[in-house]
Amino acid sequence: MEAGSERPRTLRTVRLEAFSDGVFAIAITLLVLEIAVPADSGDDLLGAVLDEWPSYLGYLVSFATIGGLWLAHTAVTDYLDRVDGILVRLNLLLLLVVSFIPFPTKLLAEYTRVDEGGRVSTTIYGITFLTASLLVTIVWRYAVREGLVRSDVADHDVRRLTHRLTPTLGAYLVMIALGLFFPIAAVVGYLLVAVVFITPFGILRRRKGD
Amino acid sequence: MEAGSERPRTLRTVRLEAFSDGVFAIAITLLVLEIAVPADSGDDLLGAVLDEWPSYLGYLVSFATIGGLWLAHTAVTDYLDRVDGILVRLNLLLLLVVSFIPFPTKLLAEYTRVDEGGRVSTTIYGITFLTASLLVTIVWRYAVREGLVRSDVADHDVRRLTHRLTPTLGAYLVMIALGLFFPIAAVVGYLLVAVVFITPFGILRRRKGD
Amino acid sequence: MEAGSERPRTLRTVRLEAFSDGVFAIAITLLVLEIAVPADSGDDLLGAVLDEWPSYLGYLVSFATIGGLWLAHTAVTDYLDRVDGILVRLNLLLLLVVSFIPFPTKLLAEYTRVDEGGRVSTTIYGITFLTASLLVTIVWRYAVREGLVRSDVADHDVRRLTHRLTPTLGAYLVMIALGLFFPIAAVVGYLLVAVVFITPFGILRRRKGD
Amino acid sequence: MEAGSERPRTLRTVRLEAFSDGVFAIAITLLVLEIAVPADSGDDLLGAVLDEWPSYLGYLVSFATIGGLWLAHTAVTDYLDRVDGILVRLNLLLLLVVSFIPFPTKLLAEYTRVDEGGRVSTTIYGITFLTASLLVTIVWRYAVREGLVRSDVADHDVRRLTHRLTPTLGAYLVMIALGLFFPIAAVVGYLLVAVVFITPFGILRRRKGD
Repeated sequence: MEAGSERPRTLRTVRLEAFSDGVFAIAITLLVLEIAVPADSGDDLLGAVLDEWPSYLGYLVSFATIGGLWLAHTAVTDYLDRVDGILVRLNLLLLLVVSFIPFPTKLLAEYTRVDEGGRVSTTIYGITFLTASLLVTIVWRYAVREGLVRSDVADHDVRRLTHRLTPTLGAYLVMIALGLFFPIAAVVGYLLVAVVFITPFGILRRRKGD
Repeated sequence: MEAGSERPRTLRTVRLEAFSDGVFAIAITLLVLEIAVPADSGDDLLGAVLDEWPSYLGYLVSFATIGGLWLAHTAVTDYLDRVDGILVRLNLLLLLVVSFIPFPTKLLAEYTRVDEGGRVSTTIYGITFLTASLLVTIVWRYAVREGLVRSDVADHDVRRLTHRLTPTLGAYLVMIALGLFFPIAAVVGYLLVAVVFITPFGILRRRKGD
Repeated sequence: MEAGSERPRTLRTVRLEAFSDGVFAIAITLLVLEIAVPADSGDDLLGAVLDEWPSYLGYLVSFATIGGLWLAHTAVTDYLDRVDGILVRLNLLLLLVVSFIPFPTKLLAEYTRVDEGGRVSTTIYGITFLTASLLVTIVWRYAVREGLVRSDVADHDVRRLTHRLTPTLGAYLVMIALGLFFPIAAVVGYLLVAVVFITPFGILRRRKGD
Repeated sequence: MEAGSERPRTLRTVRLEAFSDGVFAIAITLLVLEIAVPADSGDDLLGAVLDEWPSYLGYLVSFATIGGLWLAHTAVTDYLDRVDGILVRLNLLLLLVVSFIPFPTKLLAEYTRVDEGGRVSTTIYGITFLTASLLVTIVWRYAVREGLVRSDVADHDVRRLTHRLTPTLGAYLVMIALGLFFPIAAVVGYLLVAVVFITPFGILRRRKGD
């Protein structure tokens, strides 16, 4: 039964990754559709294009965030020996939120400069990111608790990934609160969270690999 | 001839899965494009965003349904030893319906609150889901009848998958009838069908795996 | 040098297939975005939805055609031992046309019922399909001529695939000419070409496999 | 530790490629959405369709450019033995620019015939391509410097790829400058850059392979 029962598990892991990679890649690429081309601005197109800075900022922040979530997802599934039925569903819940991100991004691009709209759209944006990060953490913690992690992954690597994922949640909570008063500062904050999350991961790994 | 004739089959299975995963992943991610950003609502954006609840409900129901169909598809193809020409075409027919889902979802989001439109859009929505579920069942039953299932899959696992797929069809028929009188109740029903379909699968498998 | 020079070739074949499958899957799934939701039709939504039949016909014909092209592409690459630089570029040219298909589909859906517009949109539609089919044939014939086909593929299998691909071109020429007089008949003809192309392939293969 | 530490690296390379292929495939296929169907032109649809030539030109140039970038990316990752954390991030930065390309393409299609708008949109278009090419070069040079290239790749193959990537940057700089005076000439120039980049690569490789 060994090989027979191993094969479907492996296949399921591969397809979970392929499907997830697909959703991440599509969600990140659909972001560009949210940037509208300015209408009737032939005589000052440069001004009209620059005036759309919230669209570019939203594109950048959402791209960095989805990119960071994808990196975290890669790190999690890299460590998995196999997946079970619950992990597949938790992962589906994560993808539900990831593929939703283009909508709050569009909302932000439209309303970030409007007084009340800026606060509302920034908060919805932040809650979406917080939920996605929370779900990555839940997927990972579930995998650890249920023993789905490969046996050749060292304990300190498991702990390190757990420690990488957790502070992001706190940072989002702070930024969401900040956004109620200074919406644009919060958006910049979301960018920082994504960039900080993306950055040191590999460098640490490289130093260790040398 | 063994290895020679085996190789293309395997390759075809892999590409069938890759192409299907692609279509499922894209259809599920395109759903977000159907959610429109409210126009001119800077002073009460929160109200305007909340007022679009049919869009979010449609997003959620369609996401859960496509997710469930993808899980069923994964279960079916996991059990396949090889595919034949007819199965590839039946699968293409299934993908035709799956990639159509964003349209009735949009229709539902726009018309669910309009009297006559609510009934019509809910019925079209349900028929689309019923057809997709029917095609997954047909793909699976065809594979079983033609002996395309791996020989190491136990008979009771084959029967279990058949029994998982069938009741969904009945549930959709009931919900479509219900939707002629209470459209929104039917939409909630479609969500329940998807959630019930998604849920116990893995848990059963896990219990057995322990 | 054997293993070293073999590896990149295999890798290139895999990525050519992955990239091509991606483009086919996305183009086929984007077709649904071309179907517009009828505006302001709450009191007769069913009539308004049915009145959009050219959109559904276009969706169906383009889906079947892209599906058929994908099947042909799968058959071609299944037989490949390796790819060379020119084949990769010819394939890119094929993908250029495949990913263009949503545009003439939209054009057809909008103008098929307008007198002059019907003729123009049907002809553009047919020329796009003819070009795509021609490019699949060119990719295949190039692969055969350059000896890129696996050595374990029998000569009659190679000839059979060549004979499958060629008549489609003639059928498209006839349909394009027909469309200058009877646009809708030509669109139905394009559907028939795709369905005929899709159909017997696998059945023949299955009979042989029994 | 050999096998254990090798496995995640390989897996990461595979997913980096899968995710990148996904983004390239989606960005290239989304280009078609930027081509608008002419409104109300039933009596002279052919004229209206031909009048949209900047959209087709933009589609062609952007398709060729993304196709060329994908080929370059394939060539780079073909030569990689493994990826490290920084390379993954540099690659993410490249994908940020690649998936942005549909926006300047749309901008170009709308404004290329407007005096001031033509200059601005062509320049933004060119800068986007220059940045993407620069990032491919950076990814490759980083991989070479950090010793991530497979040991079985000959030194002259490494140098050849470096020499292939570099002149494109200069060509883009010249074209961007040209576009300030003759926007449409620059767009044709971008097409030439892409076509020249795409063309000789494989032919050289084939000659060597004979």
